Amino acid sequence: MGELRFNDLDRTDAFAAVEPTLPDLGRLLDAARIESCDVDAGGGLKYNYAAKPVTSDTLTSLLDLGREQQIVEKFRALAGGAIMNTGERRRVLHHLLRGELAGRVEENGADLGAFYREQRARFGEFAENVRSGRLRGSTGKPFTTVVQIGIGGSDLGPRALHLALEHGRFSAAPSADVRLAVRFIANVDPDDAAAVLGSIDLESTLFILVSKSGTTQETLTNHAFVVEAMKSSRIAGLRPSSHVVAVTSRLSPLAQSDEFLDAFFIDDYIGGRYSATSAVGGVALSCAFGPAVFDEMLAGAHAADRAALETPIERNAAALDALIGVYERSILGFSATAVLPYSQALLRFPAHLQQLDMESNGKRVNRFGAEIHYPTGPVVFGEPGTNGQHSFYQLLHQGTDIVPLQFVGFRASQIGRDVSPDGWTGTQKLNANLAAQIVAFAKGSTDADPNKSFPGNRPSSLLYGERLTPRSLGALLAHFENKIMFQGFCWNINSFDQEGVQLGKRLAGTILDGTADDEALIRYARMLGVVK
Amino acid sequence: MGELRFNDLDRTDAFAAVEPTLPDLGRLLDAARIESCDVDAGGGLKYNYAAKPVTSDTLTSLLDLGREQQIVEKFRALAGGAIMNTGERRRVLHHLLRGELAGRVEENGADLGAFYREQRARFGEFAENVRSGRLRGSTGKPFTTVVQIGIGGSDLGPRALHLALEHGRFSAAPSADVRLAVRFIANVDPDDAAAVLGSIDLESTLFILVSKSGTTQETLTNHAFVVEAMKSSRIAGLRPSSHVVAVTSRLSPLAQSDEFLDAFFIDDYIGGRYSATSAVGGVALSCAFGPAVFDEMLAGAHAADRAALETPIERNAAALDALIGVYERSILGFSATAVLPYSQALLRFPAHLQQLDMESNGKRVNRFGAEIHYPTGPVVFGEPGTNGQHSFYQLLHQGTDIVPLQFVGFRASQIGRDVSPDGWTGTQKLNANLAAQIVAFAKGSTDADPNKSFPGNRPSSLLYGERLTPRSLGALLAHFENKIMFQGFCWNINSFDQEGVQLGKRLAGTILDGTADDEALIRYARMLGVVK
Repeated sequence: MGELRFNDLDRTDAFAAVEPTLPDLGRLLDAARIESCDVDAGGGLKYNYAAKPVTSDTLTSLLDLGREQQIVEKFRALAGGAIMNTGERRRVLHHLLRGELAGRVEENGADLGAFYREQRARFGEFAENVRSGRLRGSTGKPFTTVVQIGIGGSDLGPRALHLALEHGRFSAAPSADVRLAVRFIANVDPDDAAAVLGSIDLESTLFILVSKSGTTQETLTNHAFVVEAMKSSRIAGLRPSSHVVAVTSRLSPLAQSDEFLDAFFIDDYIGGRYSATSAVGGVALSCAFGPAVFDEMLAGAHAADRAALETPIERNAAALDALIGVYERSILGFSATAVLPYSQALLRFPAHLQQLDMESNGKRVNRFGAEIHYPTGPVVFGEPGTNGQHSFYQLLHQGTDIVPLQFVGFRASQIGRDVSPDGWTGTQKLNANLAAQIVAFAKGSTDADPNKSFPGNRPSSLLYGERLTPRSLGALLAHFENKIMFQGFCWNINSFDQEGVQLGKRLAGTILDGTADDEALIRYARMLGVVK
Repeated sequence: MGELRFNDLDRTDAFAAVEPTLPDLGRLLDAARIESCDVDAGGGLKYNYAAKPVTSDTLTSLLDLGREQQIVEKFRALAGGAIMNTGERRRVLHHLLRGELAGRVEENGADLGAFYREQRARFGEFAENVRSGRLRGSTGKPFTTVVQIGIGGSDLGPRALHLALEHGRFSAAPSADVRLAVRFIANVDPDDAAAVLGSIDLESTLFILVSKSGTTQETLTNHAFVVEAMKSSRIAGLRPSSHVVAVTSRLSPLAQSDEFLDAFFIDDYIGGRYSATSAVGGVALSCAFGPAVFDEMLAGAHAADRAALETPIERNAAALDALIGVYERSILGFSATAVLPYSQALLRFPAHLQQLDMESNGKRVNRFGAEIHYPTGPVVFGEPGTNGQHSFYQLLHQGTDIVPLQFVGFRASQIGRDVSPDGWTGTQKLNANLAAQIVAFAKGSTDADPNKSFPGNRPSSLLYGERLTPRSLGALLAHFENKIMFQGFCWNINSFDQEGVQLGKRLAGTILDGTADDEALIRYARMLGVVK
């Protein structure tokens, strides 16, 4: 890391040189531009930025910015084990879960990649035992349901990935017909656990308790809820410890407990929101679909990781996506970004990206703790198309603010069942809408009635592939992780901590331990029935 | 409507008089303020704006604005049948679904309220026949599952309400133990229908096809999908027409069809996103929980509607919520709003509000079609707490932009099953977190490490009640509908049309009917496999 420079965005030469221009997308966007703005993103995905407000001058400046902020060099250093989570003095190694990008990463002589591979082999074998019925519940029933108990990164990523794959019949040999249902409990609101427990059979359910620290309030409370439910069920022979595995770090209280059937480990170098490709997502997904499907997803993520090391950066999809986003956010001043997957299976992928992006880059100090003076991470939201078209697209087309858009699409449907009542399949209609939206947002249209006019010049990009498979899903996940990381490098912030979650946690703690001394806090706690 | 004035926000005296001041919430927020900023919102809900950036001077100006824009008078005119959806020359009558607010509403001598009551009685009786098993599928099996096919307002509201009630055991006598499952198909992506159909038994499923116009592309395609699935199932005696009811307008193609078991009607005065309390939501909810539960929900909505007619407007919760939102958006310049229900049952309520708000107020021309020069509707997003705390709250606390927050909370859990492994129930922990977040956002905190400092002064409001019941849920829904309507009056826009959805639809149509002549559009359609 000796040669890496860490400068705030507004201290770079490239930033000073970028002109904030919003070109006329209606004139710019033609077939030739669409072809020339198409970049390989790895894992079968392509990134197209033809409908982004980027002239060749702007692009030149942005590429300069990427080089000046050394975004690919910093990624290579990070992948090689540099302490890039500076505040917490930690390495950032989620890429290593998928494979080596910059050789072995060692710590005190130990190969950290080997540790991740070992855990993956362990939970893969465990999953096969669950799927084959060799491992059963305490009353002898095979497991048919997996319930993941976790919150934040232990919930959103695994849940989004599970939903993305659950209907695709990707279950691999030799047990292709095994389909374990997966459910999730996250919220400390007891209605979450109560609803899930009301719909499952405890005897055939395996619980996965996920907390890196082993101290997450929500997750421990929900574990207590589940254990209480098993005890009060009065089912003869039902032993909670035979129905719960833990995913945690080796040093956490959970790792020392004998309340679990087994435990799988991550370490401090896997941040919560970056942990979906670790045991945090891997145990449940391997149980549901088989370890081979999980491996394919990791291979797709690894391919996208390799693509994010590509230079020159005009061929690097994640870097381009990041740089254009920085331009839109910090130079053009747009405050939100919508993620719009035209794929029903990706229905909760935007919720995962919302955490990934807003928790990583919603920062107001640089990586050395000094206040910065430009906008960083945007508000991120989104729903699948075409659903969103019938919801919030009105504002996107005709609202007073411009919201940059990030479309995702696939040429083929995932399940492969379709109808064409009027000569066109549902998939064709879906993608005709996607194509139409890109053009409608870019070009707008005028009408004698101003209420039916569209200003256009509303920028979007498109990530697209053949079909949503474990491989392309892994690539999609990694593309966004890498985009967000690159943006953090541009902004000179630490995208890998989350100190902003601490204050609320601390104040809630003062109510519960009786040390609350803020009268407003006590008043709200009374209004809400927490204290008398 | 003779005396009503319609002026743009920036042409009002009150707007010119409002000072854009962000007071120090850390100093302002104390127990006395919390008590004085608490207003009845109807249906058992209260609205508290103590943590909003509103001094008494600001409040005075905002109340002036509300009076000058005649927001309550306009609501009364609207409820009485005035043509408030000016562009489309339509009345706006969703309040009348819940009860009369301003006497009978007549059209050509007909009582429009009687029409809504008649439809409600018809689908209530239909639902009882389904629930009792008197009405059965074509092969003789009782219905156990209801699948709603609809998109946008025919999906988001009904889905959010169903999720909010499905675990609460609100099912009413005489069939308190009947529990019909409800599923939804919305997306034209065939993976949506394929996944739902893969998980149900056709013989015991009732489909509700919902499209006011009867021409919604997604919904007709999904209907074809379902009919094709029934035909190809080769189940002897399975007749599609005995398994599908329609919800539509009397003049739509669906109303004339003999493909349906029955049809229930709405009219042009019920906008899609405002239709959850009509047959659009009512058929499915009445089948699932019984008509009495649906009636209770409507009673709650009606109570909130009445509260929104309250004057002086310092006692009107929806009006205050609206005015403060206009202040934050158009005067302080904040571009987004997060809706944060501390209730797992409200997990998709923010998605409904996202449509309700962004489709209603994402407008750039006034109600006469003239361009306006101030920000209107914000980006709306949200997830339930405490889940969101572990996701995007980092940006809300420490990001570079201020995002106003709208918290929702209940003193008691809905299902009533809870644990207290450490002396506190899950519900107490949930609400301790809610109280703590309000104070943390408002007051912030300083730390020697700037990365651990919180700037504070991030405004929030709180809507709260005793428990999430059909009644309080109805009130919650209506509160937001009315807030959004009042904001539209302040901004002088038409909150009841959605011309912004047309262009994309039209361009998609040109691909499918072969008239596309934009080369970029054709190129994207090729890339996405729609055309060769």
